[in-house]
Amino acid sequence: MLIVQKYGGSSVANAERVFNCARRISESYKAGNSVVVVLSAQGRTTNELIAKASEITDEPSKREMDMLLTTGEQQSVALMALALHKLGFPAISLNAGQAGIMTTSTHQNARFKRIETDRILSELDKKNIVVVTGFQGVDKYGDPTTLGRGASDTSAVALAASLNADICEIYTDVDGVYTADPRVVKNAVKLDEISYDEMLELASLGAKVLQNRSVELAKKYNVKLVVRSSMTDAEGTQVMAREFIKKGETNVENMFVNGVAIDKDVSRISAVGLKDEPGTAFKIFSLLAKNKISVDIILQSIGRNNSKDISFTIAKVNLNDALRVLNENLGSIGCEHISHDDKVAKLSVVGAGMATNPGVASMMFEALYNEGININMISTSEIKISCLIDEADAERGMNAVHDKFIRQASK
Amino acid sequence: MLIVQKYGGSSVANAERVFNCARRISESYKAGNSVVVVLSAQGRTTNELIAKASEITDEPSKREMDMLLTTGEQQSVALMALALHKLGFPAISLNAGQAGIMTTSTHQNARFKRIETDRILSELDKKNIVVVTGFQGVDKYGDPTTLGRGASDTSAVALAASLNADICEIYTDVDGVYTADPRVVKNAVKLDEISYDEMLELASLGAKVLQNRSVELAKKYNVKLVVRSSMTDAEGTQVMAREFIKKGETNVENMFVNGVAIDKDVSRISAVGLKDEPGTAFKIFSLLAKNKISVDIILQSIGRNNSKDISFTIAKVNLNDALRVLNENLGSIGCEHISHDDKVAKLSVVGAGMATNPGVASMMFEALYNEGININMISTSEIKISCLIDEADAERGMNAVHDKFIRQASK
Repeated sequence: MLIVQKYGGSSVANAERVFNCARRISESYKAGNSVVVVLSAQGRTTNELIAKASEITDEPSKREMDMLLTTGEQQSVALMALALHKLGFPAISLNAGQAGIMTTSTHQNARFKRIETDRILSELDKKNIVVVTGFQGVDKYGDPTTLGRGASDTSAVALAASLNADICEIYTDVDGVYTADPRVVKNAVKLDEISYDEMLELASLGAKVLQNRSVELAKKYNVKLVVRSSMTDAEGTQVMAREFIKKGETNVENMFVNGVAIDKDVSRISAVGLKDEPGTAFKIFSLLAKNKISVDIILQSIGRNNSKDISFTIAKVNLNDALRVLNENLGSIGCEHISHDDKVAKLSVVGAGMATNPGVASMMFEALYNEGININMISTSEIKISCLIDEADAERGMNAVHDKFIRQASK
Repeated sequence: MLIVQKYGGSSVANAERVFNCARRISESYKAGNSVVVVLSAQGRTTNELIAKASEITDEPSKREMDMLLTTGEQQSVALMALALHKLGFPAISLNAGQAGIMTTSTHQNARFKRIETDRILSELDKKNIVVVTGFQGVDKYGDPTTLGRGASDTSAVALAASLNADICEIYTDVDGVYTADPRVVKNAVKLDEISYDEMLELASLGAKVLQNRSVELAKKYNVKLVVRSSMTDAEGTQVMAREFIKKGETNVENMFVNGVAIDKDVSRISAVGLKDEPGTAFKIFSLLAKNKISVDIILQSIGRNNSKDISFTIAKVNLNDALRVLNENLGSIGCEHISHDDKVAKLSVVGAGMATNPGVASMMFEALYNEGININMISTSEIKISCLIDEADAERGMNAVHDKFIRQASK
């Protein structure tokens, strides 16, 4: 088998942890596999480098930041190769240029163009464990680029896709994907398997296990992902196409819902007293789009007395911009006033079983009702239901909804 | 003018010093020059990286050490480019691969093969200040290499030679080349000019201002070097071919001797009671050469009673090896016993004026005699006289000899 393993920054933060990972890598190698390892920078290295730059300027050139930051992963891969040597295994480290990871020139947010795998394949042929820098590439000028923070997952998936790897293992500090954040929900259950689509919904809803781009890429190239802990031997969670999910006892098909997620990075805006006539919604959302503000949930009240309201949610960071734009255009929109609330949270349940189980929405509403939690807005998709609730109710609501579904499913 | 400026690790150790250098660089740029800057890693970065590796293994692969260590200079050049931007100047950083610095694959001790200057020239054409990593190159596989510690001087000279630069300025923490180490000899005088050959003799004698390889390379390609302080505006010392040295009032031609140097990294070995017959010296020194031990001064006593002694000096680090090799071969050498002394120092005077001033040697011996310092061995060349003395007499001897020559010259 050809295996790609990715270890995050905390998994390689010091010499002891580097050896932990090295032992795990060597187990796979000893079992007869070809192993490509993708690493992040050690622990807080990236933050320390950013701090060094900020002592010099608060408007750093993105190109120079990439020159600076790419050194972090290069240090990790060299140290890992040394640790593998120390354990008696042949290994070689490669930075993105050596590994042939070609990207666009958009520094700090580059996109993969292609991976020229010759060097990696020739090192694997020599029976080397190949240790590659995550998070980075080189552009057509040979200049280092980075793919955006947390992008080492994406590097691993891109390498797995290019090398046609049998599996891409993402080692992290949690031991898999849970039905909810186990730090918040005490009854959270680890999933054995989950589909790409559900993982994407969970990731976009604030479950920070895998970077979204990595899951999208895995789905596109059908790369089988496993998320597991670098600290324990627990089995982890497999992320794969829905049709490959086995119908076993512990798998997600027994549940209506695979995950519950909370997103507190959300604000609600309401445009109150709009004329009940065509074009009102268009005016509001084209204004926001022109100002690069993304809108999530949208809710429009039923017109009454020739007046209606439109409410929507946006990321907290865009709240001030959105309020300014809307208030400057109150007249042209034809709106009495704008109200807003930034003390809200979006509680969501995700599950492929939902579409064929019409009772899911009402079960969610019942759970919240039983806790006396008010629902401000509701939004639904094929595999997701989201409710906007008060931020103060977030943890309580999450536990209630989780227990409703996951306990129901276990019965 | 095309100027290459090199700044050492202590000159860029923190943000404040980076800005100091950036201001100096920008002065040259504002004066209308094309400027290429060569940097070492910041302060103790290289030592810290070596410490990280030694937490993992005490036998690190040289290739992986190069992967690790080359990140240090890449951080410096990125930070310097950011500082130059902050001051309002266009600048771009390049690592060795980007700058086209091609070397052999001898990791940790690579040699220059060629510098492909296209990228640097195109950045200079765009009016960029080009900031290049010192100390490193890439081999034909695109793998990072390093040139050995302290080699950033050599990188700067190699770049100056390849770019046909008008001058190569080496900025360091001393303000030039002195007639002796000013920390030891209170009357030491800064030289305005010195020839490559004399600089080479001084460097090899323990005056650690410039790396020897950089001076050899400067001589070979006739690169005009200036050694000066990154902290002050003092003029510094020009290092150039002897024929270009001006006959000014303050220059070296007025002195018999341009420099006095002391080298304490030296041990003496004596092979006592050798047969006075052909081949004895050959046996001893071929044994040492086979064991990669370099010998410096060699002295052979006159034969008497069919017996002679051979004494020689070697670096302290080789003492144990040399003693072992010689004692294992006492019989085949035909030697009674081996004695040694590692409490010695080599005191040398260097000067092109020496060859035409026959009294130089006797002046040196007189100065030592007046101080009551015993001479163990003597060695002479065209432009150098070295005496082996007791280590305890080193500083006193250095001051005495320095004052004899430099005061004589000032009269």
